[in-house]
Amino acid sequence: MATNPAPKRPRIVIIGCGFGGLEAARALRGATVAITLVDRTNHHLFQPLLYQVATAGLSAPAIAAPIRHLFRQQANVTTLLAQVKRIEPALRRVLLSDGSALGYDHLVVAAGSTHSYFGRDDWAPFAPGLKTLDDAFEIRRRILLAFEAAERETDPDKRAALLNFVVVGAGPTGVEMAGTIAEIARHTLPGEFRNIDPASARIVLLEGGARVLQAMPEHLSQRALEQLHKLGVEVRLNARVAAIDAHGLEVQSGDGSASANTNSYRIASPCIVWAAGVAASPLGKQLAQESGATVDRAGRIVVQPDLSIDGHPEISVIGDLAAAQSHVPGRAPTAVPGVSPAAKQMGRCTAANILRRLNAQAGIPFRYRDYGNLATIGRNSAVVDLVSPLGPLHFSGRLAWLFWLFAHIYFLIGFRNRLVVLLDWGWAYWSFARYARVVTGITPIPPVDRQIDT
Amino acid sequence: MATNPAPKRPRIVIIGCGFGGLEAARALRGATVAITLVDRTNHHLFQPLLYQVATAGLSAPAIAAPIRHLFRQQANVTTLLAQVKRIEPALRRVLLSDGSALGYDHLVVAAGSTHSYFGRDDWAPFAPGLKTLDDAFEIRRRILLAFEAAERETDPDKRAALLNFVVVGAGPTGVEMAGTIAEIARHTLPGEFRNIDPASARIVLLEGGARVLQAMPEHLSQRALEQLHKLGVEVRLNARVAAIDAHGLEVQSGDGSASANTNSYRIASPCIVWAAGVAASPLGKQLAQESGATVDRAGRIVVQPDLSIDGHPEISVIGDLAAAQSHVPGRAPTAVPGVSPAAKQMGRCTAANILRRLNAQAGIPFRYRDYGNLATIGRNSAVVDLVSPLGPLHFSGRLAWLFWLFAHIYFLIGFRNRLVVLLDWGWAYWSFARYARVVTGITPIPPVDRQIDT
Repeated sequence: MATNPAPKRPRIVIIGCGFGGLEAARALRGATVAITLVDRTNHHLFQPLLYQVATAGLSAPAIAAPIRHLFRQQANVTTLLAQVKRIEPALRRVLLSDGSALGYDHLVVAAGSTHSYFGRDDWAPFAPGLKTLDDAFEIRRRILLAFEAAERETDPDKRAALLNFVVVGAGPTGVEMAGTIAEIARHTLPGEFRNIDPASARIVLLEGGARVLQAMPEHLSQRALEQLHKLGVEVRLNARVAAIDAHGLEVQSGDGSASANTNSYRIASPCIVWAAGVAASPLGKQLAQESGATVDRAGRIVVQPDLSIDGHPEISVIGDLAAAQSHVPGRAPTAVPGVSPAAKQMGRCTAANILRRLNAQAGIPFRYRDYGNLATIGRNSAVVDLVSPLGPLHFSGRLAWLFWLFAHIYFLIGFRNRLVVLLDWGWAYWSFARYARVVTGITPIPPVDRQIDT
Repeated sequence: MATNPAPKRPRIVIIGCGFGGLEAARALRGATVAITLVDRTNHHLFQPLLYQVATAGLSAPAIAAPIRHLFRQQANVTTLLAQVKRIEPALRRVLLSDGSALGYDHLVVAAGSTHSYFGRDDWAPFAPGLKTLDDAFEIRRRILLAFEAAERETDPDKRAALLNFVVVGAGPTGVEMAGTIAEIARHTLPGEFRNIDPASARIVLLEGGARVLQAMPEHLSQRALEQLHKLGVEVRLNARVAAIDAHGLEVQSGDGSASANTNSYRIASPCIVWAAGVAASPLGKQLAQESGATVDRAGRIVVQPDLSIDGHPEISVIGDLAAAQSHVPGRAPTAVPGVSPAAKQMGRCTAANILRRLNAQAGIPFRYRDYGNLATIGRNSAVVDLVSPLGPLHFSGRLAWLFWLFAHIYFLIGFRNRLVVLLDWGWAYWSFARYARVVTGITPIPPVDRQIDT
């Protein structure tokens, strides 16, 4: 009764289960392959709503789905919770931090990005960024504990300093964070404190460039700026951070026109959020060293049109870790932005190219379809910049906010989460309450200087 | 235009916002007093459902309400997030860990209880108990990461050991934990792993006494035992823990009849939950030393019939920290059990007695009204022991489970939370899915011995 053993299935290892890795694994459903999906967390995180966890509007499980639950019905996927230590392209294997190794016939590296402090990693403890759930909990803790510390503080100067909130960087995350902190201070907390007025909190949004939301058309930046002002956010453009410590930060500001107009000042604050820069996962550098791939200034791996690495057709790099270009026949290639729709599209493209390669076909070049850009500022305010067949479509205000809301809920993974998020938001909208105001652990609020901001 | 200053309001300080402290503060609504409510967390925790957070069925915000939000409309309450360092009865003040002091005219100590390892505090890192949200996250992490580690493990013995779960203590919490871990293993996770069968997990419930749920009538203990067996929980009665380390625990077991029948064995396990004992908050001991109050063997303060301390009518102790008696005219006093309805009733009694004391009236003795006892074991199984005017009412199984469910949802604080919990459970009931399977941080699973359990 002995038969020949079944031909061994090609082993595909995918590192990272963000938007790129998730989509690549999904697009391989039905393929006769053995996929191992490695992530150092047990959940796929819907990062566009992470700021809501940081600002106590959503609980963590509402935007985090267990990876192995998502793939329970896709039998060709094995999920491993593990940290990747290094990639060995010469041996075609991935080393995990527990010492074990995963061999592969094709490798997809979708390890994403982390914060960049532009070489000042010593600022990290004083100004956490927002990439993981742990980051979100830490920022939530700092926001809520700052109000708690101010309620206990009897010195008026110290109390005022405790109510300074600073967000560095006015990209989508920075704008969302600043707008939502302002909402908490002006709408959620008033009436709950006896010694302070939470509405007196200062929310400062610092931006190194000349406008907020620089990826957006200029008039939408202007709209966003107006909406931020309406929420009571102090926006400081052309303002660069010179130093951050446990008590606050130093800002150098100029109007951008003449260097003589530069001045420098200090803002005391116990709660600084870093939304200024991202850097590719360190895995990129390690892989580039061993594979001979090129790395760009941001640490991303420069990929071929089919998203593989030069000289290594069996390795694809996708998502924020890839410096990819979009290829449209008859046009010059254009750079692909580091946004989640691009990561998803790269996931699908790389899955198709893996299957083509297994069939000895040449890969197809990646083409990025840009559907536009959204950013929300707070309750009833957002800006939308859509690419439509009829030309660009721009709008802002309440309609844009509703569009943003339903687009985000639509793209949330899994019906359960969509329902929960919709209910949480419905509740928050009508009551102004924020549901997830839980702080766990006991973390002392860092001491704060007297307010010497000028 | 100068007028006499308004008479100063009596200052009431309440330490702890569990069931007792919350109820005391609420019962003083409308009183002309200045209440300061101090808690070291920012939330009131609905502890009866904490095991659901630990077993990934509920998110933390579903059972934790921000204290200052609960009291936003009660103007005589100031909420402080602070840790109490010590009580100074001679100076009538409470010292906080930030060095500040709160003077009081009346003090209510409702600091609750913590785990007791019966003098073996060195076991704590290997067998966390379940009192706070942080405890619940730690236990959730250990349960879920044990399955993850087993999926990665290739050695069959080690893999089996990783799937051993041990709960120590078969009171209500231990029974709930063991039943729910069994549900996760048998119903939630199967189909999601490729290298292990989660349903093969062993769930062991160790109990030092001769039956589970010893506070219940004997035949209900028997019903609970049967329901545990049906869920696949191994219940070991008359089993005492002799040692716990990072790799597992040593058990001494006998049938309780003859010492010759005692034997000793080891269970290897990465996930041990401690549900065996509680001890009064250490604040009790400190207060007793300075006030001359008596402390019982469990570290609780022996209180007067009106819940004050002997010689200190201006200090009340309520909830789990109080060794209180119930006084019914014409009957001998009976001990009050450490359950949440008793804490709430003490909170209301002490509020009434504070108002009487401010009016120079004598306090009324505390009378505990026992409405009965509930415990759930898992899906569709619970035991109910009600005290009714018609005599005791006992039932078990699905009806008891529904009763338990609605009783718990009814007592949850705030409509928002009730709705969320009901939806989460409705979803979990129909889908067998568990919503909150998020593990944050990266905690290595402790190494596990080969399974040498005999």
